[in-house]
Amino acid sequence: MKTLILGGVRSGKSRLAERLARESGRPVTYIATATAGDAEMSERIAAHRARRPVDWAVIETPLALAATLHAHARADGCLIVDCLTLWLTNLLLANDEQALARERQALLDTLAVLPGDILLVGNETGMGIVPLGELTRRYCDAAGWLHQDIAACCDRVLLTVAGLPLALKGELP
Amino acid sequence: MKTLILGGVRSGKSRLAERLARESGRPVTYIATATAGDAEMSERIAAHRARRPVDWAVIETPLALAATLHAHARADGCLIVDCLTLWLTNLLLANDEQALARERQALLDTLAVLPGDILLVGNETGMGIVPLGELTRRYCDAAGWLHQDIAACCDRVLLTVAGLPLALKGELP
Amino acid sequence: MKTLILGGVRSGKSRLAERLARESGRPVTYIATATAGDAEMSERIAAHRARRPVDWAVIETPLALAATLHAHARADGCLIVDCLTLWLTNLLLANDEQALARERQALLDTLAVLPGDILLVGNETGMGIVPLGELTRRYCDAAGWLHQDIAACCDRVLLTVAGLPLALKGELP
Repeated sequence: MKTLILGGVRSGKSRLAERLARESGRPVTYIATATAGDAEMSERIAAHRARRPVDWAVIETPLALAATLHAHARADGCLIVDCLTLWLTNLLLANDEQALARERQALLDTLAVLPGDILLVGNETGMGIVPLGELTRRYCDAAGWLHQDIAACCDRVLLTVAGLPLALKGELP
Repeated sequence: MKTLILGGVRSGKSRLAERLARESGRPVTYIATATAGDAEMSERIAAHRARRPVDWAVIETPLALAATLHAHARADGCLIVDCLTLWLTNLLLANDEQALARERQALLDTLAVLPGDILLVGNETGMGIVPLGELTRRYCDAAGWLHQDIAACCDRVLLTVAGLPLALKGELP
Repeated sequence: MKTLILGGVRSGKSRLAERLARESGRPVTYIATATAGDAEMSERIAAHRARRPVDWAVIETPLALAATLHAHARADGCLIVDCLTLWLTNLLLANDEQALARERQALLDTLAVLPGDILLVGNETGMGIVPLGELTRRYCDAAGWLHQDIAACCDRVLLTVAGLPLALKGELP
């Protein structure tokens, strides 16, 4: 089962992914795309980490997401990717259009054939005013398109608001 | 049947409107409210255009939306308006309060009596932080009120997220 | 019955709260957290006020929300809090971390035991790009966490879009 969980800032999307992973009863591998670039991000990462069971494997993957998923997916396992939009931001900041297109396509191709439970977390950032700035606009476009493409190949898509999930595709957990 | 389709940036709202128009089996008239003010917008318009069937009539209407709808609605036809929020922005930028109020009321009056299938697309921009700037705040207020008023006179209101529709009013297509 | 109503700018969240209060048939106390700091806010407050029945009691409470709720809740009454996010902003601007933590906890503790109908209105601001600025980021985090905690102790949570409610928890009204 592949599940995409979208949600705004502090909407409970990571918590929901972690709950679904625990409830799967499977061994969990947590793929973190964040890199501790500043103090605020370090704190956020530490807070996420403190919440996770100690027996979860954690892999930090800022860019090569498809390769990491391919290497770690198992028919009886559960993978969490938290989150897609940070991975996309890392690729945009790397400023290499070809690498972005290649990694993006590799992710979609890999997702289509991965065994086991996969939980993908993404920030929903498309329902506000888009601020000025070329990078922000590129990000908004790229994130919207990515979420559409990932949603199309997931069995279940959920939107979290105030910690509560809405089902966009498939059934509520 | 009148349908309002709201959604964030790159959420698949235009695609959904175009799919519903194709599936209606009716002759389609596409009313574009965008004007190619800069290179980025020209590209966006070209991308939208490349996606549409060649037998669709296309009418560019930055301001006089009610008159265009009135002139082109037919009992056996299907109209797409893409999008309401650009039309509203065009009116706000024209900086004529009376024209804005008049065109807005004309749209609501016209919608109430139009024959045929009408698909109206709007940007949902109200669920983020409202940036500073008087025009942006006026836009956010005006867009929210407009969507409420249009929703009240539509049979069906859908919100797209990641390419997937949620039904706010009426049934999912 | 405790109801949390979230929604974006001009999404109809206050109107929905006011409709549910009227339909309750109970005496209504309206708790306003806004303070008329500038002309725009004064206008918004006046517009809200003009819409409300004259027999509703109105109490302005920018900070001490838990105490006000505690003092005014009655088993046969209906309280509206409009809105949580302005109250949170008032606390953040007061720049006293301990007062914020204390008032926040007092609200959650009080809500758990309040009698009667309680309608809480909050701005959903988490689904756009988070603008730069430390206060804005703190606000977004605090609002998201607050909404999650309030939602957990409400019987019903609704999200309004274009004046139409989606049920996140419990039944649609």
